[in-house]
Amino acid sequence: MTAISPLAPAQFPDMPPIDGVRLATAAAGIRYAGRTDVLLALFEPGTTVAGVFTRSKCPSAPVDWCRAQLKHGRAGALVVNSGNANAFTGKSGREATKVTADITSTAAKCEPRDVFLASTGVIGEPLDATKFGSVMDRLVTTAAPGAWHEAANAIMTTDTFPKGAAAMARLGGTPVTICGIAKGAGMIAPDMATMLSFVFTDAAIAPKVLQSLLKAGVADTFNAVTIDGDTSTSDTLLAFATGTAAQRGVAQIASLSDPRLPAFRKAFDAVLANLAEQVARDGEGARKLVEIIVEGASSKTSARKIAMSIANSPLVKTAIAGEDANWGRVVMAVGKAGERADRDKLSIWFGGIRVAHKGERDATYDEAAVSAAMKKPEITLKVALGLGRGRDRVLTCDLTKEYVAINGDYRS
Amino acid sequence: MTAISPLAPAQFPDMPPIDGVRLATAAAGIRYAGRTDVLLALFEPGTTVAGVFTRSKCPSAPVDWCRAQLKHGRAGALVVNSGNANAFTGKSGREATKVTADITSTAAKCEPRDVFLASTGVIGEPLDATKFGSVMDRLVTTAAPGAWHEAANAIMTTDTFPKGAAAMARLGGTPVTICGIAKGAGMIAPDMATMLSFVFTDAAIAPKVLQSLLKAGVADTFNAVTIDGDTSTSDTLLAFATGTAAQRGVAQIASLSDPRLPAFRKAFDAVLANLAEQVARDGEGARKLVEIIVEGASSKTSARKIAMSIANSPLVKTAIAGEDANWGRVVMAVGKAGERADRDKLSIWFGGIRVAHKGERDATYDEAAVSAAMKKPEITLKVALGLGRGRDRVLTCDLTKEYVAINGDYRS
Repeated sequence: MTAISPLAPAQFPDMPPIDGVRLATAAAGIRYAGRTDVLLALFEPGTTVAGVFTRSKCPSAPVDWCRAQLKHGRAGALVVNSGNANAFTGKSGREATKVTADITSTAAKCEPRDVFLASTGVIGEPLDATKFGSVMDRLVTTAAPGAWHEAANAIMTTDTFPKGAAAMARLGGTPVTICGIAKGAGMIAPDMATMLSFVFTDAAIAPKVLQSLLKAGVADTFNAVTIDGDTSTSDTLLAFATGTAAQRGVAQIASLSDPRLPAFRKAFDAVLANLAEQVARDGEGARKLVEIIVEGASSKTSARKIAMSIANSPLVKTAIAGEDANWGRVVMAVGKAGERADRDKLSIWFGGIRVAHKGERDATYDEAAVSAAMKKPEITLKVALGLGRGRDRVLTCDLTKEYVAINGDYRS
Repeated sequence: MTAISPLAPAQFPDMPPIDGVRLATAAAGIRYAGRTDVLLALFEPGTTVAGVFTRSKCPSAPVDWCRAQLKHGRAGALVVNSGNANAFTGKSGREATKVTADITSTAAKCEPRDVFLASTGVIGEPLDATKFGSVMDRLVTTAAPGAWHEAANAIMTTDTFPKGAAAMARLGGTPVTICGIAKGAGMIAPDMATMLSFVFTDAAIAPKVLQSLLKAGVADTFNAVTIDGDTSTSDTLLAFATGTAAQRGVAQIASLSDPRLPAFRKAFDAVLANLAEQVARDGEGARKLVEIIVEGASSKTSARKIAMSIANSPLVKTAIAGEDANWGRVVMAVGKAGERADRDKLSIWFGGIRVAHKGERDATYDEAAVSAAMKKPEITLKVALGLGRGRDRVLTCDLTKEYVAINGDYRS
């Protein structure tokens, strides 16, 4: 394992239990030795579920499985494994999802269609689903509320730290809780999101409302993070609402016009944003967290495309790794985005210092101040296009030799 | 300077002079010390010219200049400098192009509008055009036929070897010659091409025909090469036809239906393909030349998009650097291309060995043979989609720690 990312939070956050969610982990030996690699989450009857997935045209078997089960909107259990993505595994992959759902439904006493699955790790290797059988009964027996840290650990692959976030919202005066975990690291780009993330709440939310919340929430969080522009076949974000808060008098949110929704959405989005930022902080080989802001674009969509063009440019990312405010490469990345841009109206800031203005180097900037800003672990790069009111923000990280080592040296 | 690419040709090719083209180089001290950094090419009166350029929305001043002068289709001189791209230099950049053209037209006794310009190097630094003045008279005096090697050297930036190619065609029984030079290295991606390339012939070709030839010729050569997916603001490919072969009885090719055109096109395209391949062989930090073939796609356009998605994937490129036939990452890159693809029909070959078939690992392949193939300096990666008859081919290189060092360590 590589060292913990220098951009990691100081510690795993305090996360309260969610009523109606029990968690357990096990070491099933799927690929790794000496660590947990399976997570089971068990849900109270009546738990609703929503999901967003990779837009890859070659999704993994578990992604196909979840998409199919989402239609009825209810969940009894979630099984996640690390070490094997069960992707590009053909018929045996589909059978592995079915076997896993059957094993889980028997042990957890729910319907197979209520079992949600996610797998992360190597692509193209058959997943031996019988390994779940050897740990499932014990997982069901030991499942307990609040084991977030263990859960976040069990789903890691090349992650250097476990990722969790929690928030609270008041619905009609009564508090409800939202907790989430995620794993990311490489192969992270929007369409959709991080590889795997799971968010849980005790609020009662109708499936359609939960799906709408999730879809809107990812747009400026997980979908605004890119590490290397590569999109996993397995990207999965599932949200589960146990509804147990109804026992404390919090009625179900059944419609998008519910006046309590904005407060819930704010907390829900904060959890997604927190997790997405942690994914960027754990980009493979990352030494700098880079926030890219594009403003003055002809639209928000245009601003997003330009921001992504900058965020995915190897030349911009290597310059940032080298602590150089190389705004020439930023101009290049703006130019190649294919969006409206006028060279002579373009201004660029690194760390709040304007280095280029109206198509030329800003002669007034202080080289020493820029140099000091570039040495910081967190850098904001802002581009003003001077065309319209479109604005957007994405997060990425630098491109270092460690990225190449992690993704190229693993066999040597 | 870094060591010469291990993928470089053994030597600079023998290239004959082109009647009507004289070349000279000088060390004008634009940025580099102890090397030539200016190339002057002088053309016989009547020389026609065609050009294709970067599709960047923020092109350099010389690109703007050339686009404007191309309209009348005649060339008297070409001035190329390395060390400074004269890009994102605002009004001073536009003035620098005008001053350079004026200096050149006076010395070379042609109109300013007959002077073509190209600059490569740092973006955003003002280009001091008076430096051309100090060397121009001597350049004009010393210009001589056939100085291809010196010309190719003078235009290099982070290139590790000079790039040249020549071919001959028979037009109605009489030979004509085509010679070209190029520089590339990083920031190479289609839309359009390498940073700078210049092709010369003594055939007489009408401007419109030459433009058509060039536009068609780049599609499967320069536009099918990608190093890092980044597109320069300065990409320029100019073709010059001196027409001096008319003195040897070769009448002008004035229309696309000229029966002599296919023979000329074949030789012309071969020069473009040769130069484009050399650009890939000199990708920054490259240790492997990678040919990516996609077949069975729904169209050639779709095959190109999928091939480019593979060629630009950092995860595929780092795996190749690590000599791992990681076809799972190829599946990922196919999936993220957004083009039609059916996981269960996909087959993948590395070095001619099928490693995946119909959506699963090919159980029959010999791991040792694949491993040996991956150790070679040239690797072909083939993907068959099994959908239609669309086929395409692109060239790229691997992504190594040296790429990051070249583009990130330059300040340290």
